[in-house]
Amino acid sequence: MRISQVIKMSDWLTALLVLGTLTSQAQSTREAIRAHSPIFSKGEKAPASNFTGTVWVRTLVPDETTYHCVVGNVTFEPGARSNWHSHPTGQILLVTDGLGYYQEKGKPIQIMHKGDVFKCPPDIEHWHGASPTSPMTHVSIIPNSEKGIAVWLKKVTDQEYNNGN
Amino acid sequence: MRISQVIKMSDWLTALLVLGTLTSQAQSTREAIRAHSPIFSKGEKAPASNFTGTVWVRTLVPDETTYHCVVGNVTFEPGARSNWHSHPTGQILLVTDGLGYYQEKGKPIQIMHKGDVFKCPPDIEHWHGASPTSPMTHVSIIPNSEKGIAVWLKKVTDQEYNNGN
Repeated sequence: MRISQVIKMSDWLTALLVLGTLTSQAQSTREAIRAHSPIFSKGEKAPASNFTGTVWVRTLVPDETTYHCVVGNVTFEPGARSNWHSHPTGQILLVTDGLGYYQEKGKPIQIMHKGDVFKCPPDIEHWHGASPTSPMTHVSIIPNSEKGIAVWLKKVTDQEYNNGN
Repeated sequence: MRISQVIKMSDWLTALLVLGTLTSQAQSTREAIRAHSPIFSKGEKAPASNFTGTVWVRTLVPDETTYHCVVGNVTFEPGARSNWHSHPTGQILLVTDGLGYYQEKGKPIQIMHKGDVFKCPPDIEHWHGASPTSPMTHVSIIPNSEKGIAVWLKKVTDQEYNNGN
């Protein structure tokens, strides 16, 4: 076997090794992206009339007669928040990602962390949104939706929002 | 300045650089762990009478008169599954992680992926669980829980379960 042949074989082996490493890296990158990826797709932009900033809503379970339970995934970009509003039957919020703010009328702002559960009683005015620097995603559950879903009220002013800082 | 002093300074600079790198690595490791960490803590082991294998249940919203909506986080270890069961008012499942199986009586097994939503109508016999090789986590929502939560039935046999392969 000539030296040039040995070099060629060694080149092939190196190429195979590099290819193997790259494939394995690509696999672990795909797995990492998948693990990091949001659970639900973002959905549609929420109406500017009821929100400040960019907010995405994906309906997971619409209002229907079998379950009477509206479930949605809501993603607030940094600084974005809902208007003040209330729900005739209350609302359950499951924070799935990020950092946000939650406030009921007349009470201090509470910080929303991944894994927190907030329950807002019927007819209580409140708002929720992202923090100024981090997005926030929550699942929203409105039970007994045959009695109504939401009553939308005034915008949350910058002054009200900045009390969270 | 003597050469030994220069070397000492260089050692200090190197040490600072290494420390900085390690600190930054530790921070990004912490962030990665946080991003990867489950949304909710696992909770308590589910009763062996209603489940096969290791299943964890964390109650997020108990049965109460304000919302009449029971919400729980359920984690199935690989191979684990519920018994056959039904709910008087149906059940909504939000798959938040892993890979699992869902089956309604008389229908083929469906694969549960992260981001899928399953709605099981009232009084329909069904079961859900992890795949044989991957865990699966879902949020369970039982609306109108004043009418009852669950009716537990027979174990899912290995034969029934292995039809998912």
